[in-house]
Amino acid sequence: MSKGLILVLSGPAGSGKDTLLNRYFKFGSAKKTISATTRAIRNCEKDGIDYYFFTRERFEKAIAAGELLEYTEYAGNYYGTLYSEINRITAAGDDVILKIEVEGGQNVKKLFPEAILIFTFPPSAAILAARLRRRGTEDEQTIKKRLTVAQTEIEAAKKTYDYLIINDDADDAAKQLADIISARHAAMNENIDFMNEVKDDVKNHFI
Amino acid sequence: MSKGLILVLSGPAGSGKDTLLNRYFKFGSAKKTISATTRAIRNCEKDGIDYYFFTRERFEKAIAAGELLEYTEYAGNYYGTLYSEINRITAAGDDVILKIEVEGGQNVKKLFPEAILIFTFPPSAAILAARLRRRGTEDEQTIKKRLTVAQTEIEAAKKTYDYLIINDDADDAAKQLADIISARHAAMNENIDFMNEVKDDVKNHFI
Repeated sequence: MSKGLILVLSGPAGSGKDTLLNRYFKFGSAKKTISATTRAIRNCEKDGIDYYFFTRERFEKAIAAGELLEYTEYAGNYYGTLYSEINRITAAGDDVILKIEVEGGQNVKKLFPEAILIFTFPPSAAILAARLRRRGTEDEQTIKKRLTVAQTEIEAAKKTYDYLIINDDADDAAKQLADIISARHAAMNENIDFMNEVKDDVKNHFI
Repeated sequence: MSKGLILVLSGPAGSGKDTLLNRYFKFGSAKKTISATTRAIRNCEKDGIDYYFFTRERFEKAIAAGELLEYTEYAGNYYGTLYSEINRITAAGDDVILKIEVEGGQNVKKLFPEAILIFTFPPSAAILAARLRRRGTEDEQTIKKRLTVAQTEIEAAKKTYDYLIINDDADDAAKQLADIISARHAAMNENIDFMNEVKDDVKNHFI
Protein backbone atom coordinates (compact mmCIF):
# COMPACT_ATOMS: atom_id res chain seq x y z
CA MET A 1 0.00 0.00 0.00
CA SER A 2 1.37 3.39 -0.92
CA LYS A 3 1.21 6.47 1.27
CA GLY A 4 -1.68 8.83 0.76
CA LEU A 5 -1.36 12.27 -0.80
CA ILE A 6 -1.17 15.51 1.19
CA LEU A 7 -3.51 18.17 -0.20
CA VAL A 8 -3.85 21.74 0.97
CA LEU A 9 -6.87 23.84 0.02
CA SER A 10 -6.62 27.58 0.53
CA GLY A 11 -8.65 30.55 -0.60
CA PRO A 12 -9.65 33.98 0.68
CA ALA A 13 -12.72 34.50 2.86
CA GLY A 14 -15.65 34.41 0.44
CA SER A 15 -13.97 32.04 -2.01
CA GLY A 16 -16.40 29.30 -1.02
CA LYS A 17 -13.85 26.76 0.15
CA ASP A 18 -16.09 25.37 2.90
CA THR A 19 -18.95 24.67 0.50
CA LEU A 20 -16.50 23.19 -2.00
CA LEU A 21 -15.12 20.81 0.64
CA ASN A 22 -18.56 19.87 1.97
CA ARG A 23 -19.60 18.89 -1.55
CA TYR A 24 -16.34 17.00 -2.08
CA PHE A 25 -16.70 14.98 1.11
CA LYS A 26 -20.12 13.76 -0.05
CA PHE A 27 -18.42 11.55 -2.63
CA GLY A 28 -14.64 11.92 -2.33
CA SER A 29 -12.32 9.50 -0.56
CA ALA A 30 -9.74 11.91 0.89
CA LYS A 31 -9.96 12.51 4.64
CA LYS A 32 -10.24 15.57 6.86
CA THR A 33 -7.95 16.04 9.81
CA ILE A 34 -9.41 15.86 13.31
CA SER A 35 -8.89 19.13 15.18
CA ALA A 36 -7.58 19.47 18.71
CA THR A 37 -9.52 21.71 21.10
CA THR A 38 -9.66 22.76 24.72
CA ARG A 39 -13.42 23.16 24.77
CA ALA A 40 -15.44 20.73 26.91
CA ILE A 41 -16.52 17.45 25.37
CA ARG A 42 -20.25 17.19 24.68
CA ASN A 43 -22.39 14.15 25.44
CA CYS A 44 -22.64 12.97 21.87
CA GLU A 45 -18.93 13.45 21.12
CA LYS A 46 -16.03 11.02 21.23
CA ASP A 47 -12.40 11.93 21.89
CA GLY A 48 -10.31 11.17 18.81
CA ILE A 49 -13.37 11.05 16.56
CA ASP A 50 -14.98 14.50 16.74
CA TYR A 51 -11.98 16.27 18.24
CA TYR A 52 -8.92 15.54 20.27
CA PHE A 53 -9.97 17.02 23.60
CA PHE A 54 -6.94 18.61 25.22
CA THR A 55 -6.51 20.37 28.54
CA ARG A 56 -5.38 23.95 28.23
CA GLU A 57 -1.99 22.96 29.60
CA ARG A 58 -1.52 20.20 27.06
CA PHE A 59 -2.63 22.45 24.20
CA GLU A 60 -0.18 25.18 25.21
CA LYS A 61 2.61 22.60 25.45
CA ALA A 62 1.76 21.50 21.90
CA ILE A 63 1.92 25.14 20.75
CA ALA A 64 5.29 25.64 22.44
CA ALA A 65 6.65 22.42 20.94
CA GLY A 66 5.62 23.54 17.43
CA GLU A 67 3.25 20.58 17.05
CA LEU A 68 0.45 22.68 15.59
CA LEU A 69 0.13 23.51 11.94
CA GLU A 70 -2.26 26.29 12.91
CA TYR A 71 -4.38 27.24 15.87
CA THR A 72 -6.79 29.91 16.97
CA GLU A 73 -8.44 30.99 20.20
CA TYR A 74 -12.21 31.46 19.98
CA ALA A 75 -14.63 32.15 22.83
CA GLY A 76 -11.95 31.28 25.36
CA ASN A 77 -11.03 27.93 23.81
CA TYR A 78 -8.19 26.82 21.57
CA TYR A 79 -8.80 25.05 18.28
CA GLY A 80 -5.96 23.77 16.12
CA THR A 81 -4.54 21.20 13.73
CA LEU A 82 -1.73 18.90 14.77
CA TYR A 83 1.00 18.15 12.24
CA SER A 84 0.81 14.53 13.41
CA GLU A 85 -2.61 14.28 11.74
CA ILE A 86 -0.93 14.34 8.33
CA ASN A 87 1.18 11.25 9.04
CA ARG A 88 -1.67 9.46 10.82
CA ILE A 89 -3.89 9.69 7.74
CA THR A 90 -1.33 9.22 4.95
CA ALA A 91 0.36 6.27 6.70
CA ALA A 92 -2.99 4.46 6.54
CA GLY A 93 -2.90 4.95 2.75
CA ASP A 94 -5.55 7.68 2.75
CA ASP A 95 -5.24 11.11 1.16
CA VAL A 96 -5.54 14.02 3.57
CA ILE A 97 -7.03 17.44 2.81
CA LEU A 98 -6.03 20.42 4.95
CA LYS A 99 -8.06 23.60 4.73
CA ILE A 100 -5.63 26.34 5.75
CA GLU A 101 -4.49 29.81 4.85
CA VAL A 102 -1.87 30.39 2.18
CA GLU A 103 0.88 30.99 4.72
CA GLY A 104 -0.01 27.73 6.49
CA GLY A 105 0.04 25.95 3.13
CA GLN A 106 3.54 27.22 2.49
CA ASN A 107 4.62 25.91 5.91
CA VAL A 108 3.17 22.48 5.07
CA LYS A 109 5.13 22.49 1.80
CA LYS A 110 8.36 23.22 3.68
CA LEU A 111 7.85 20.22 5.95
CA PHE A 112 6.23 17.97 3.31
CA PRO A 113 7.67 18.92 -0.10
CA GLU A 114 5.36 16.36 -1.74
CA ALA A 115 2.28 18.30 -0.55
CA ILE A 116 -0.04 19.51 -3.31
CA LEU A 117 -1.15 23.13 -2.83
CA ILE A 118 -4.52 24.11 -4.30
CA PHE A 119 -5.90 27.66 -4.33
CA THR A 120 -9.53 28.44 -4.92
CA PHE A 121 -11.10 31.71 -6.01
CA PRO A 122 -14.46 32.83 -7.39
CA PRO A 123 -14.72 33.57 -11.14
CA SER A 124 -13.95 37.27 -10.53
CA ALA A 125 -12.94 39.82 -7.91
CA ALA A 126 -16.42 41.36 -8.18
CA ILE A 127 -18.01 38.04 -7.18
CA LEU A 128 -15.64 37.71 -4.21
CA ALA A 129 -16.57 41.22 -3.02
CA ALA A 130 -20.29 40.50 -3.55
CA ARG A 131 -20.08 37.22 -1.60
CA LEU A 132 -18.39 38.98 1.31
CA ARG A 133 -21.04 41.73 1.34
CA ARG A 134 -23.91 39.26 0.99
CA ARG A 135 -22.90 37.57 4.24
CA GLY A 136 -24.02 40.77 5.94
CA THR A 137 -22.02 39.91 9.04
CA GLU A 138 -19.16 42.34 8.58
CA ASP A 139 -18.85 46.10 8.22
CA GLU A 140 -17.36 47.71 5.12
CA GLN A 141 -14.01 48.26 6.81
CA THR A 142 -13.64 44.58 7.69
CA ILE A 143 -14.60 43.65 4.14
CA LYS A 144 -11.94 45.95 2.70
CA LYS A 145 -9.42 44.38 5.09
CA ARG A 146 -10.39 40.91 3.90
CA LEU A 147 -9.98 41.99 0.28
CA THR A 148 -6.53 43.39 1.05
CA VAL A 149 -5.59 40.02 2.55
CA ALA A 150 -7.07 38.33 -0.54
CA GLN A 151 -4.81 40.39 -2.77
CA THR A 152 -1.72 39.26 -0.85
CA GLU A 153 -2.91 35.64 -0.94
CA ILE A 154 -3.48 35.71 -4.71
CA GLU A 155 0.07 36.96 -5.25
CA ALA A 156 1.57 34.38 -2.87
CA ALA A 157 -0.51 31.52 -4.31
CA LYS A 158 0.44 32.47 -7.86
CA LYS A 159 4.08 31.88 -6.94
CA THR A 160 3.86 28.87 -4.64
CA TYR A 161 0.64 26.95 -5.31
CA ASP A 162 0.28 24.04 -7.73
CA TYR A 163 -3.35 24.37 -8.82
CA LEU A 164 -6.17 26.86 -9.12
CA ILE A 165 -9.80 25.81 -8.87
CA ILE A 166 -12.13 28.54 -10.10
CA ASN A 167 -15.07 28.16 -7.75
CA ASP A 168 -18.16 29.16 -9.69
CA ASP A 169 -20.43 26.16 -9.13
CA ALA A 170 -19.47 24.31 -5.92
CA ASP A 171 -20.25 20.87 -7.38
CA ASP A 172 -18.04 21.51 -10.43
CA ALA A 173 -15.29 22.80 -8.15
CA ALA A 174 -15.57 19.71 -5.92
CA LYS A 175 -15.35 17.52 -9.02
CA GLN A 176 -12.22 19.36 -10.14
CA LEU A 177 -10.68 18.76 -6.71
CA ALA A 178 -11.41 15.05 -7.17
CA ASP A 179 -9.90 15.20 -10.69
CA ILE A 180 -6.69 16.70 -9.31
CA ILE A 181 -6.48 13.93 -6.70
CA SER A 182 -7.15 11.26 -9.34
CA ALA A 183 -4.50 12.72 -11.66
CA ARG A 184 -1.91 12.90 -8.90
CA HIS A 185 -2.44 9.21 -8.15
CA ALA A 186 -1.73 8.58 -11.83
CA ALA A 187 1.53 10.59 -11.71
CA MET A 188 4.43 8.41 -12.86
CA ASN A 189 6.43 9.06 -9.67
CA GLU A 190 3.56 7.48 -7.69
CA ASN A 191 3.75 4.37 -9.88
CA ILE A 192 7.43 3.48 -10.15
CA ASP A 193 6.99 0.29 -8.11
CA PHE A 194 4.24 -0.89 -10.45
CA MET A 195 6.37 -0.13 -13.53
CA ASN A 196 9.32 -2.07 -12.13
CA GLU A 197 7.10 -4.97 -11.16
CA VAL A 198 5.45 -5.38 -14.57
CA LYS A 199 8.78 -4.94 -16.35
CA ASP A 200 10.36 -7.73 -14.30
CA ASP A 201 7.27 -9.90 -14.76
CA VAL A 202 7.31 -9.50 -18.54
CA LYS A 203 11.01 -10.36 -18.56
CA ASN A 204 10.93 -13.31 -16.17
CA HIS A 205 7.70 -15.02 -17.09
CA PHE A 206 6.63 -14.06 -20.59
CA ILE A 207 9.67 -13.71 -22.85
CA MET B 1 -8.65 31.98 -25.06
CA SER B 2 -5.70 29.92 -23.95
CA LYS B 3 -3.94 27.33 -26.09
CA GLY B 4 -5.05 23.73 -25.75
CA LEU B 5 -3.00 21.02 -24.08
CA ILE B 6 -0.89 18.48 -25.98
CA LEU B 7 -1.47 14.95 -24.71
CA VAL B 8 0.31 11.81 -25.82
CA LEU B 9 -1.10 8.36 -25.07
CA SER B 10 1.23 5.39 -25.46
CA GLY B 11 1.11 1.79 -24.42
CA PRO B 12 2.29 -1.59 -25.70
CA ALA B 13 0.20 -3.68 -28.09
CA GLY B 14 -2.47 -5.31 -25.93
CA SER B 15 -2.58 -2.45 -23.40
CA GLY B 16 -6.05 -1.50 -24.64
CA LYS B 17 -5.24 2.07 -25.67
CA ASP B 18 -7.65 2.04 -28.64
CA THR B 19 -10.60 0.98 -26.49
CA LEU B 20 -9.59 3.51 -23.82
CA LEU B 21 -9.56 6.32 -26.41
CA ASN B 22 -12.83 5.22 -28.03
CA ARG B 23 -14.51 5.38 -24.62
CA TYR B 24 -12.89 8.74 -23.89
CA PHE B 25 -14.07 10.31 -27.15
CA LYS B 26 -17.67 9.38 -26.28
CA PHE B 27 -17.68 12.11 -23.63
CA GLY B 28 -14.31 13.90 -23.63
CA SER B 29 -13.61 17.24 -25.27
CA ALA B 30 -10.01 16.70 -26.44
CA LYS B 31 -9.58 16.19 -30.19
CA LYS B 32 -7.92 13.54 -32.35
CA THR B 33 -5.52 14.50 -35.10
CA ILE B 34 -6.54 13.92 -38.70
CA SER B 35 -4.13 11.54 -40.45
CA ALA B 36 -2.57 12.06 -43.85
CA THR B 37 -2.73 9.20 -46.34
CA THR B 38 -1.97 8.34 -49.95
CA ARG B 39 -4.85 5.91 -50.29
CA ALA B 40 -7.70 6.86 -52.66
CA ILE B 41 -10.53 8.94 -51.27
CA ARG B 42 -13.82 7.06 -50.88
CA ASN B 43 -17.22 8.42 -51.88
CA CYS B 44 -18.37 9.17 -48.37
CA GLU B 45 -15.10 10.81 -47.33
CA LYS B 46 -14.05 14.46 -47.27
CA ASP B 47 -10.49 15.74 -47.60
CA GLY B 48 -9.44 17.48 -44.38
CA ILE B 49 -12.21 15.79 -42.40
CA ASP B 50 -11.61 12.05 -42.61
CA TYR B 51 -8.03 12.27 -43.82
CA TYR B 52 -5.73 14.63 -45.62
CA PHE B 53 -5.52 12.91 -48.99
CA PHE B 54 -1.99 13.31 -50.32
CA THR B 55 -0.37 12.17 -53.55
CA ARG B 56 2.52 9.81 -53.07
CA GLU B 57 4.88 12.56 -54.18
CA ARG B 58 3.52 15.04 -51.66
CA PHE B 59 3.63 12.48 -48.85
CA GLU B 60 7.25 11.61 -49.60
CA LYS B 61 8.13 15.30 -49.66
CA ALA B 62 6.54 15.65 -46.24
CA ILE B 63 8.61 12.70 -44.98
CA ALA B 64 11.81 14.20 -46.37
CA ALA B 65 11.00 17.59 -44.84
CA GLY B 66 10.49 15.99 -41.41
CA GLU B 67 6.86 17.12 -41.30
CA LEU B 68 5.59 13.79 -40.00
CA LEU B 69 5.50 12.83 -36.38
CA GLU B 70 5.15 9.22 -37.46
CA TYR B 71 4.15 7.32 -40.57
CA THR B 72 3.74 3.79 -41.80
CA GLU B 73 3.21 2.06 -45.13
CA TYR B 74 0.37 -0.42 -45.21
CA ALA B 75 -1.02 -2.28 -48.24
CA GLY B 76 0.92 0.00 -50.56
CA ASN B 77 -0.30 3.25 -49.01
CA TYR B 78 1.26 5.69 -46.59
CA TYR B 79 -0.51 6.75 -43.40
CA GLY B 80 0.94 9.34 -41.05
CA THR B 81 0.49 12.19 -38.59
CA LEU B 82 1.63 15.70 -39.47
CA TYR B 83 3.26 17.79 -36.74
CA SER B 84 1.16 20.72 -38.01
CA GLU B 85 -1.94 18.97 -36.64
CA ILE B 86 -0.78 19.76 -33.10
CA ASN B 87 -0.69 23.52 -33.70
CA ARG B 88 -3.90 23.48 -35.76
CA ILE B 89 -5.85 21.97 -32.85
CA THR B 90 -4.22 23.71 -29.88
CA ALA B 91 -4.32 27.16 -31.55
CA ALA B 92 -8.11 26.78 -31.72
CA GLY B 93 -8.09 26.35 -27.92
CA ASP B 94 -8.75 22.60 -28.06
CA ASP B 95 -6.71 19.89 -26.38
CA VAL B 96 -5.16 17.35 -28.73
CA ILE B 97 -4.54 13.65 -28.02
CA LEU B 98 -1.90 11.79 -29.98
CA LYS B 99 -1.84 8.00 -29.86
CA ILE B 100 1.76 7.10 -30.62
CA GLU B 101 4.58 4.82 -29.56
CA VAL B 102 6.86 5.74 -26.65
CA GLU B 103 9.67 6.82 -28.97
CA GLY B 104 7.27 9.10 -30.87
CA GLY B 105 6.05 10.50 -27.58
CA GLN B 106 9.59 11.38 -26.62
CA ASN B 107 10.03 13.16 -29.97
CA VAL B 108 6.86 15.19 -29.34
CA LYS B 109 8.24 16.17 -25.94
CA LYS B 110 11.47 17.40 -27.52
CA LEU B 111 9.56 19.69 -29.89
CA PHE B 112 6.77 20.57 -27.44
CA PRO B 113 8.21 20.51 -23.91
CA GLU B 114 4.75 21.32 -22.53
CA ALA B 115 3.37 18.02 -23.91
CA ILE B 116 1.91 15.67 -21.31
CA LEU B 117 3.02 12.06 -21.79
CA ILE B 118 0.68 9.33 -20.57
CA PHE B 119 1.49 5.63 -20.56
CA THR B 120 -1.14 2.94 -20.23
CA PHE B 121 -0.70 -0.67 -19.20
CA PRO B 122 -2.97 -3.52 -18.05
CA PRO B 123 -3.06 -4.35 -14.32
CA SER B 124 -0.35 -7.00 -14.77
CA ALA B 125 2.11 -8.48 -17.24
CA ALA B 126 0.07 -11.71 -17.22
CA ILE B 127 -3.01 -9.81 -18.42
CA LEU B 128 -0.99 -8.15 -21.20
CA ALA B 129 0.26 -11.55 -22.39
CA ALA B 130 -3.24 -13.03 -22.15
CA ARG B 131 -4.75 -10.15 -24.17
CA LEU B 132 -2.14 -10.61 -26.90
CA ARG B 133 -2.80 -14.36 -27.07
CA ARG B 134 -6.57 -13.91 -27.00
CA ARG B 135 -6.42 -11.89 -30.20
CA GLY B 136 -5.41 -15.13 -31.90
CA THR B 137 -4.01 -13.23 -34.86
CA GLU B 138 -0.31 -13.67 -34.13
CA ASP B 139 2.00 -16.63 -33.63
CA GLU B 140 3.87 -17.21 -30.40
CA GLN B 141 7.10 -15.78 -31.79
CA THR B 142 5.42 -12.48 -32.73
CA ILE B 143 3.82 -12.31 -29.29
CA LYS B 144 7.19 -12.79 -27.59
CA LYS B 145 8.61 -10.05 -29.81
CA ARG B 146 5.77 -7.71 -28.80
CA LEU B 147 6.44 -8.47 -25.14
CA THR B 148 10.12 -7.70 -25.58
CA VAL B 149 9.15 -4.34 -27.08
CA ALA B 150 6.73 -3.81 -24.18
CA GLN B 151 9.57 -4.34 -21.71
CA THR B 152 11.66 -1.63 -23.41
CA GLU B 153 8.66 0.71 -23.51
CA ILE B 154 7.93 0.26 -19.80
CA GLU B 155 11.51 1.17 -18.94
CA ALA B 156 11.52 4.22 -21.26
CA ALA B 157 8.08 5.40 -20.06
CA LYS B 158 9.14 5.04 -16.43
CA LYS B 159 11.88 7.58 -17.07
CA THR B 160 10.21 10.01 -19.44
CA TYR B 161 6.43 9.81 -19.09
CA ASP B 162 4.33 11.97 -16.77
CA TYR B 163 1.42 9.67 -15.96
CA LEU B 164 0.43 6.02 -15.83
CA ILE B 165 -3.12 4.87 -16.39
CA ILE B 166 -3.64 1.29 -15.28
CA ASN B 167 -6.10 0.03 -17.87
CA ASP B 168 -8.25 -2.54 -16.15
CA ASP B 169 -11.76 -1.31 -16.96
CA ALA B 170 -11.74 0.84 -20.12
CA ASP B 171 -14.40 3.23 -18.81
CA ASP B 172 -12.46 3.84 -15.59
CA ALA B 173 -9.28 4.36 -17.60
CA ALA B 174 -11.05 6.83 -19.93
CA LYS B 175 -12.32 8.69 -16.87
CA GLN B 176 -8.80 8.87 -15.46
CA LEU B 177 -7.59 10.32 -18.76
CA ALA B 178 -10.30 12.98 -18.46
CA ASP B 179 -9.24 13.61 -14.84
CA ILE B 180 -5.63 14.17 -15.92
CA ILE B 181 -6.79 16.66 -18.57
CA SER B 182 -9.03 18.46 -16.06
CA ALA B 183 -6.21 18.64 -13.50
CA ARG B 184 -3.75 20.00 -16.05
CA HIS B 185 -6.17 22.79 -16.92
CA ALA B 186 -6.22 23.62 -13.21
CA ALA B 187 -2.41 23.76 -13.02
CA MET B 188 -1.29 27.15 -11.70
CA ASN B 189 0.96 27.79 -14.71
CA GLU B 190 -2.13 27.58 -16.95
CA ASN B 191 -3.87 30.22 -14.82
CA ILE B 192 -1.33 32.98 -14.27
CA ASP B 193 -3.31 35.44 -16.42
CA PHE B 194 -6.42 34.85 -14.33
CA MET B 195 -4.48 35.32 -11.09
CA ASN B 196 -3.00 38.60 -12.29
CA GLU B 197 -6.37 39.82 -13.50
CA VAL B 198 -8.23 39.15 -10.24
CA LYS B 199 -5.38 40.59 -8.20
CA ASP B 200 -5.45 43.85 -10.18
CA ASP B 201 -9.25 43.91 -10.02
CA VAL B 202 -9.28 43.53 -6.24
CA LYS B 203 -6.70 46.28 -5.95
CA ASN B 204 -8.21 48.75 -8.40
CA HIS B 205 -11.91 48.35 -7.78
CA PHE B 206 -12.55 46.88 -4.37
CA ILE B 207 -10.02 48.21 -1.87
